[in-house]
Amino acid sequence: MATFNVSWQDIEQAHERVKPYIHRTPVLSSESINTIVGAELYFKCENFQKIGAFKARGGINAVFSLPKEQRSRGVVTHSSGNHAQAIALAAKMAGVPAYIVMPKTAPQVKIAAVEGYGAHITLCEPTQASREETSARIQKETGAVFISPYNDFKVIEGQATCAKELLEELPELNTLITPVGGGGLLAGTALTAHYLNDKVEVLAGEPEGANDTYLSMQKGELVRIDAPKSIADGLLATMGDKNFEIIRPLVKQILVVSDSEIIDAMRMIWERMKIVIEPSCAVPFAAILKNKELFEGQKVGVILTGGNIDLGKLPF
Amino acid sequence: MATFNVSWQDIEQAHERVKPYIHRTPVLSSESINTIVGAELYFKCENFQKIGAFKARGGINAVFSLPKEQRSRGVVTHSSGNHAQAIALAAKMAGVPAYIVMPKTAPQVKIAAVEGYGAHITLCEPTQASREETSARIQKETGAVFISPYNDFKVIEGQATCAKELLEELPELNTLITPVGGGGLLAGTALTAHYLNDKVEVLAGEPEGANDTYLSMQKGELVRIDAPKSIADGLLATMGDKNFEIIRPLVKQILVVSDSEIIDAMRMIWERMKIVIEPSCAVPFAAILKNKELFEGQKVGVILTGGNIDLGKLPF
Repeated sequence: MATFNVSWQDIEQAHERVKPYIHRTPVLSSESINTIVGAELYFKCENFQKIGAFKARGGINAVFSLPKEQRSRGVVTHSSGNHAQAIALAAKMAGVPAYIVMPKTAPQVKIAAVEGYGAHITLCEPTQASREETSARIQKETGAVFISPYNDFKVIEGQATCAKELLEELPELNTLITPVGGGGLLAGTALTAHYLNDKVEVLAGEPEGANDTYLSMQKGELVRIDAPKSIADGLLATMGDKNFEIIRPLVKQILVVSDSEIIDAMRMIWERMKIVIEPSCAVPFAAILKNKELFEGQKVGVILTGGNIDLGKLPF
Repeated sequence: MATFNVSWQDIEQAHERVKPYIHRTPVLSSESINTIVGAELYFKCENFQKIGAFKARGGINAVFSLPKEQRSRGVVTHSSGNHAQAIALAAKMAGVPAYIVMPKTAPQVKIAAVEGYGAHITLCEPTQASREETSARIQKETGAVFISPYNDFKVIEGQATCAKELLEELPELNTLITPVGGGGLLAGTALTAHYLNDKVEVLAGEPEGANDTYLSMQKGELVRIDAPKSIADGLLATMGDKNFEIIRPLVKQILVVSDSEIIDAMRMIWERMKIVIEPSCAVPFAAILKNKELFEGQKVGVILTGGNIDLGKLPF
């Protein structure tokens, strides 16, 4: 049996660490959606999580896992999205400085949200090189600790607590499905299923235009793609090696969906469930709608990852 | 002390009657909204109710209160909106025919939803006279019982169960606020507060362009207005006399808001709470945002009435 760098005890400790700071999010279901799909779907609503996304879990776990002496110099990361808010919030809760590098093309609303948590923002060019350079410079100047958005065992442990809550509430689930971008949530979910009940199958949905995980699973090694592009803007990151070590043996299948399938799935959740989710969050449900035969008669836990979307720019 | 045609026992019996058929909807709150308002708001999420609106409560209570012999001939109503769906669903649950008169201008999506519950739909001209004539004819032909959308004690009892759940869950609330259109929900809410804890103040929000309740309260008698108009399409109905008997002595104040205030309030709830609500549903929150000083430091129960909105025609 494979061993992993994150143990069940690590996940349990992460859960104790983050619990005081996060919401225990509700699990919703919809009769009309179950009828359409022919399965029982249980949606874990991380769109209701602090900062509106599951990333609060990993961010808080990473920041609070640092020894006090080390975290007192602050934390630094680069992100244009939910991870930036997660680290800014976690740092605020821990009473330490947060230095967030954001591409100058990031939406004003996201920059404002990060500023709202009192973080120090540095704008950079919208390239991976500029992001990394700028973060490294700040790290050197301030002594702050760098926290990766997903390729970090403490982040994986934190994200794993979401599936932990779901499986503890509904131990009868057969299947879990998440989106996959950088792979932190998927790796954490796969570990939780592995430790709690290894009969639970773990799958992921991935956007067609950013399908590096699908390709990597086919090839059995990490495949990079150039210029990923999808309406699911939270899933453009490249699979991290630490995550892939976990995902490769534990995840059954990656299901690829198109942007129009993502939009249709998102709209169906808004209409039938009356909740706001972002495009990245609709990817697993789009994958279920596209592959109903895989889920027929199953009890499926679907992690709804977030609800941060610009209402002024909806795709319908 | 005034006596009313609906007793506390009637409301308790209505709750027992509808419970097996409705969802016990969750109560949500938002730290960021509470900070903006300077009060503690508790949102009772009837947008998650069957048919996506509180009207399921009144419809089910009215249909299931009919003696079996009488309801076997079916039920008839006229409505272009949530009441049509409520009666169609209730009739389906009771296994009796539903005859729904809908204006031929009603959105196709709403007609389809009512059809989805197996109701018989008759389209009529989009005037009150044509609605009433058509309903009366069907009533005569079929022997079906007419159920008013709001001016009906059984409907009022059913709607009263929503505030009953809220006050039983949170007995510390000082204030309750609902929207007001025909007045069924407001009357039911006022009765529940009166019977459970008459220190709880009950208020309502009403759209500027359909402010007949505001005018009626000022004058102390029912005032009709011509051609009500508002983005809050669920609140265009005229206050019923049975409701006004209850509302007049028990409701503290009607707060009037403009359409643009309604849209801003709706957007804030979508953005901060990640839930989908319809314009009519945002009216009480718009009233709170406009009159913060009235709610300062209070614990306020806000009934979120529904989430049925055409996502293809959003006002933002």
